[in-house]
Amino acid sequence: MTAVEIIDVSPRDGLQIDSRIASVDEKVTLIERLAQSGLRRIEVTSFVHPKFVPQMADATEVLARVTQIPNLQTIALVPNLKGYERARQTEVSEVNWVSAATETFNAKNIGQTKDENFHQFQQMLRLAKEDGKRTAFSIAVSFGCPYEGETDPQAVLDLAERVLATDVDRLMIADTIGIAIPTQIEALMPELVEMTEKAGKELSLHLHDTRGFGVANAYEAYRIGVRSFEASASGIGGCPFAPGAAGNIATEDLAYLFERMQVDTGLQMDRLIEAANVAASLSTKTPLGKMREIYNREKGNDQ
Amino acid sequence: MTAVEIIDVSPRDGLQIDSRIASVDEKVTLIERLAQSGLRRIEVTSFVHPKFVPQMADATEVLARVTQIPNLQTIALVPNLKGYERARQTEVSEVNWVSAATETFNAKNIGQTKDENFHQFQQMLRLAKEDGKRTAFSIAVSFGCPYEGETDPQAVLDLAERVLATDVDRLMIADTIGIAIPTQIEALMPELVEMTEKAGKELSLHLHDTRGFGVANAYEAYRIGVRSFEASASGIGGCPFAPGAAGNIATEDLAYLFERMQVDTGLQMDRLIEAANVAASLSTKTPLGKMREIYNREKGNDQ
Repeated sequence: MTAVEIIDVSPRDGLQIDSRIASVDEKVTLIERLAQSGLRRIEVTSFVHPKFVPQMADATEVLARVTQIPNLQTIALVPNLKGYERARQTEVSEVNWVSAATETFNAKNIGQTKDENFHQFQQMLRLAKEDGKRTAFSIAVSFGCPYEGETDPQAVLDLAERVLATDVDRLMIADTIGIAIPTQIEALMPELVEMTEKAGKELSLHLHDTRGFGVANAYEAYRIGVRSFEASASGIGGCPFAPGAAGNIATEDLAYLFERMQVDTGLQMDRLIEAANVAASLSTKTPLGKMREIYNREKGNDQ
Repeated sequence: MTAVEIIDVSPRDGLQIDSRIASVDEKVTLIERLAQSGLRRIEVTSFVHPKFVPQMADATEVLARVTQIPNLQTIALVPNLKGYERARQTEVSEVNWVSAATETFNAKNIGQTKDENFHQFQQMLRLAKEDGKRTAFSIAVSFGCPYEGETDPQAVLDLAERVLATDVDRLMIADTIGIAIPTQIEALMPELVEMTEKAGKELSLHLHDTRGFGVANAYEAYRIGVRSFEASASGIGGCPFAPGAAGNIATEDLAYLFERMQVDTGLQMDRLIEAANVAASLSTKTPLGKMREIYNREKGNDQ
């Protein structure tokens, strides 16, 4: 086991709103490169309705191609029961259910109350258990909501408590719009670390870097005891609900930070940079990551 | 007194290596805008030899124009006694002497040993005291050196001890090439906070954002007790000694972080964004700051 796990979400979060739609081949190449860098868990796609997210319409096909990659656990985002019906036809290892900490975000983006959505999650959880799939529950807008402003930490803790009382394997706390600052991490995460440890579940943190505080938040969370982070190779992506919101923190920047801290991530920087170059090439957005450019310059890579 | 002081260095560090040389008028406009945002101390120029840094050849003229700005303490970088001879002809409030923590950096960039340079600093300090000017001593490459790699914290502490035994007003710790990570801040800064407090001197931290850890480092330093930061409006700039090294952390990003933390900086964000827009317009480099774009978009500013 590594001291810290980074879960790359670039094939999903990085590519899901890009105006250029990556092909199945391109996605498979990206996922292969990511796996070659040592990543053992990758969120490879999502089972959202193709009408809303055409970029992920090929979810089944991508999964069929990447499940054969050795030592890789695939994760797919699942927004509802219909999405799970598609997911269960695949060999995906883990399904990631997303619900928001605020009612308004849920109403606008899922069309359900938090209670209704949680009820649907429980139905999916039963099916997933039958199917032998791991499950994650992501709490979106855990620090701030585009509609409600700063999120009440108690709303996150209450939802987390309900989630941790279920059979779920992983709780994910997401700063969906990249609004968190380190003091919010310090205020919210210690209790969640304790709760998940007590429940014997995994805890991940999913950060965006809209305001440049992504790495500061990740470091603060590490200091507090968080040991699993979601990040996106080259920092590509954005949030469809916050115009101009930036991508996830860059996988290679986070990996570099931990390498410098002598904290094992199991990742090989050189190969990770190659994967990040592929990710960047599939995105029309300016990648956020800093280390990719530095490595490429040092290596004389033509990027 | 504000809870935290931000010293803007964009007119000096931000513009000193740009291929486009800003005019005196442009620099004065930038400094005026910065002062209007509430900044009380600004590093406005440097007295380096115009042959090496033509961008700062107008130091005397810029100072003559900005010393009349109300409530503004001007700072000028001074690399040697000759530079001080020029600085003392002006009304500059504070002179900032720069020496490196490593011998190789000093040898290559100043052509002196650390001892020789410290001896020259002491001579300047006597003159500055006679002239009634405040003084700062900056320790460059305090975390990493382009020639020697990671900097030995003891080398910084030893030099700091010598500096704090003098009549200097301020000790500045600089991450010149933007290589520091938060654990280095945590390892070095607490002792420096204690030493400067005991000596009754001011302590500042000067951070670059080459690898995206600038804000994380600033936050970590704040947590430890550092209360004075140097930053550059819009994050313009770079380091002449590290190709591709990025500018300082952006003044407005840091100000936004403290505002969110409810830590008083005395700065008005709207006006600071206007100043940052001016800074960005004077630079040919892509500004690093994130908050400027977000504010401009919210305000519908055409940037």
